[in-house]
Amino acid sequence: MPSHILQTRENKSLPARIALSAAHTRGAHLRTEHFGDWLAERGRAHTFRVERIPFAELDGWSFQVSTGNLVHRSGRFFTVEGLHVTEEGEPYGDGPYADWCQPIIKQPEVGVLGILVKEFDGVLHFLMQAKMEPGNPNLLQLSPTVQATRSNYTKAHQGADVKYIEYFVGPDRGRIVADVLQSEHGSWFYRKANRNMVVEAVGDVPLHDDFCWLTLGQIHELLHRDNVVNMDSRTVLSCLPFADAADGALLSDTDLLSWITGERTRHSVRTERVPLDSIPGWKRGDSAIEHEEGRYFNVVAVSVRAGNREVTGWTQPLFEPVGLGVTAFLTREFGGVPHVLAHARVEAGFLDTVELGPTVQCTPDNYAHLPERERPRFLDTVLRAGPDRIRYEVVHSEEGGRFLNAVSRFLVVRADESDAPRTPPPGYAWVTPGQLTSLVRHGHYLNVQARTMLACLNAIAERTP
Amino acid sequence: MPSHILQTRENKSLPARIALSAAHTRGAHLRTEHFGDWLAERGRAHTFRVERIPFAELDGWSFQVSTGNLVHRSGRFFTVEGLHVTEEGEPYGDGPYADWCQPIIKQPEVGVLGILVKEFDGVLHFLMQAKMEPGNPNLLQLSPTVQATRSNYTKAHQGADVKYIEYFVGPDRGRIVADVLQSEHGSWFYRKANRNMVVEAVGDVPLHDDFCWLTLGQIHELLHRDNVVNMDSRTVLSCLPFADAADGALLSDTDLLSWITGERTRHSVRTERVPLDSIPGWKRGDSAIEHEEGRYFNVVAVSVRAGNREVTGWTQPLFEPVGLGVTAFLTREFGGVPHVLAHARVEAGFLDTVELGPTVQCTPDNYAHLPERERPRFLDTVLRAGPDRIRYEVVHSEEGGRFLNAVSRFLVVRADESDAPRTPPPGYAWVTPGQLTSLVRHGHYLNVQARTMLACLNAIAERTP
Repeated sequence: MPSHILQTRENKSLPARIALSAAHTRGAHLRTEHFGDWLAERGRAHTFRVERIPFAELDGWSFQVSTGNLVHRSGRFFTVEGLHVTEEGEPYGDGPYADWCQPIIKQPEVGVLGILVKEFDGVLHFLMQAKMEPGNPNLLQLSPTVQATRSNYTKAHQGADVKYIEYFVGPDRGRIVADVLQSEHGSWFYRKANRNMVVEAVGDVPLHDDFCWLTLGQIHELLHRDNVVNMDSRTVLSCLPFADAADGALLSDTDLLSWITGERTRHSVRTERVPLDSIPGWKRGDSAIEHEEGRYFNVVAVSVRAGNREVTGWTQPLFEPVGLGVTAFLTREFGGVPHVLAHARVEAGFLDTVELGPTVQCTPDNYAHLPERERPRFLDTVLRAGPDRIRYEVVHSEEGGRFLNAVSRFLVVRADESDAPRTPPPGYAWVTPGQLTSLVRHGHYLNVQARTMLACLNAIAERTP
Repeated sequence: MPSHILQTRENKSLPARIALSAAHTRGAHLRTEHFGDWLAERGRAHTFRVERIPFAELDGWSFQVSTGNLVHRSGRFFTVEGLHVTEEGEPYGDGPYADWCQPIIKQPEVGVLGILVKEFDGVLHFLMQAKMEPGNPNLLQLSPTVQATRSNYTKAHQGADVKYIEYFVGPDRGRIVADVLQSEHGSWFYRKANRNMVVEAVGDVPLHDDFCWLTLGQIHELLHRDNVVNMDSRTVLSCLPFADAADGALLSDTDLLSWITGERTRHSVRTERVPLDSIPGWKRGDSAIEHEEGRYFNVVAVSVRAGNREVTGWTQPLFEPVGLGVTAFLTREFGGVPHVLAHARVEAGFLDTVELGPTVQCTPDNYAHLPERERPRFLDTVLRAGPDRIRYEVVHSEEGGRFLNAVSRFLVVRADESDAPRTPPPGYAWVTPGQLTSLVRHGHYLNVQARTMLACLNAIAERTP
């Protein structure tokens, strides 16, 4: 037995407390049926207006003369630059060789995405925030307690303080439930990571306007509504240490890690930051940087007027994807244990070559010009699935601080041996949600779309406290 | 219970089988007392000669005209380039601000370092190789079964086949015990990683010259001898899934991961590859690139004549560190559980900013010119420790294929509250060997020196099968 000065390596009561919260669909503070009214009321309490503007009307942002990069005069926030990507064949990878250029967001700051939790009536509640982001299709969504860049919460910041930040950084912070650096969109960000934290408060917590306490069961219900739970909330929720319902899996954890190592080894991706005005295939107009074929995304600018942001009123660039995305896990049971089909994805902005994504992650419009066999694998299986096979389907949007109307259908689709064989093609592996939960404790394993999907899988799992 | 088509997520018998092998100091094939003779005999069976040569005598290697980078005409192997490193203070890190340039090795290929294991008489034995590397102080050391770059074992290779490689790659490989991409020296390599593998053979394994089967107990004895077990063996051995003898630790695993996340977040390191001939503070002569103050390392060239390498006879550059290194863990017991003091180290070549290193990792000569308070923390405690406090002290060398006489004293030194307080200074944390074993299952957590130290800690631990 460890002495009293030691801790057990794993907190064995925590998974049960999380399961208990997931089983409670009635919170101590706000009933789920009143949530919509509460959110609408928060929206009325503030006036938000987001308008597209030409680049020339950006305040503080401009295209650097020497590079054409889109930068802020302070040197802070983020820049939009060019990226030249080469996926190499032999001798260091096994290809296929690919080579392209694209705009990419470079944002070196590591932000904090943090959810504060606290027990009320013996049940963990999560402190969530009604937060406006200019790129959200409905502006106001449910965000983590804290969603702050480092500039936001250090002395460099010019606006209001970040509420509750003291629970996440500094000497008086709460008990750590999860704390891990996770990547964000590797196709849009160059090596961006945010600190995903869940912290349990010790002692009383004041409740500010725009915040509410919800059980995990309530949040799981909200995850069944379109465009309510924002991306930052979803990624933080995915890091919760849920207990694994099953001890078995098609691949042991060692075999799964080995498969990931093999996927990392066989791909070799080289990236080079290049001037934005030098990249072929993209053109800059007064109000947008667009792909010549109209694919992928546009870089645009917006003006924002808002009341409850740290700074009132600003302009900024946003990435606006072209078309509705499809993000889906195929799922099958093996030996009575649910598995999902993970895809080892290369995204140019990943720090470590490959992360696991959902089975399908794409914007179908970008592939419409290609012959069927060159379209993303398993996309047709997802698109053709009838309602009886769709276990989950909700529209969620990506981070509204950087992406404008970046919406995707998130689906969990039942498959069978004919759609998705037990021995999947190279680059795919069947894994259990429990294995994903173990992986997400560490960075560089699950991409942000897979983390949203994991949060959704947890929301549809039947769990007993 | 999982069905028969599933595996348990963790192989629960493996740690006990490893402990059993560690407890066996008598192998089925070669007695430890005969090992020295065997190694000497392997040395006599081949003729090796390594000579320093001027750069002008390098065959196939030259300084690129435009950059001064040292490159091979094939574009393969590795290059020696310049690196400009900035550790930033605010706004994105918390400094101290530092800025320097240095030569660095860029080797994009991911190699395989693999040990094949197999049971004889119910005890796991490890297939080890007597292998010459030109930079080893005694040329011949004990290496993993396979130590091969990707060029070595793919069709691009011009020399002999890599023995036993089929057990590690391809469809007929053995059962995976460990398989993880690990970093190598972040001060000398730019983002280099190798695949560390332990694989259990299924069926008979032919025994080739230069190879021998040893129990883990035997290897642990050899880890007490100077310059015998090479770096590649040590890093692979560190990845073995030893059972944790203790469930308790000063920090829970969640708190430890959170501390690492915090260390990664507070440092911001920017690196830029620059032409080798542009870096200030370094000068190139006919036979060496040296630091102007004679510190750190030299880049030199050697000619090699050998019989048992894939290619007979070659020339190559090597990095030659200046002075004997000191690599040490301070150790204390808390609540009856041994802990070591890990240091969150920034090394310029790391992919992900920070990895855990030993308490002390330096070449003291490089700091001799500095006032005492600017020398590495805890170095004096290690250097002043009397024999009664030294739990382990052996001289090991780093990878002899890239580094010439890169030798360090590796020490485990007992400390107390006055030397190393229970609440350590920022950047340090007390962790158990069991926690290091959990971390090393994933990349980017333990640097190569910490992995050597972990292999040594396992070699000195008293274990019961």
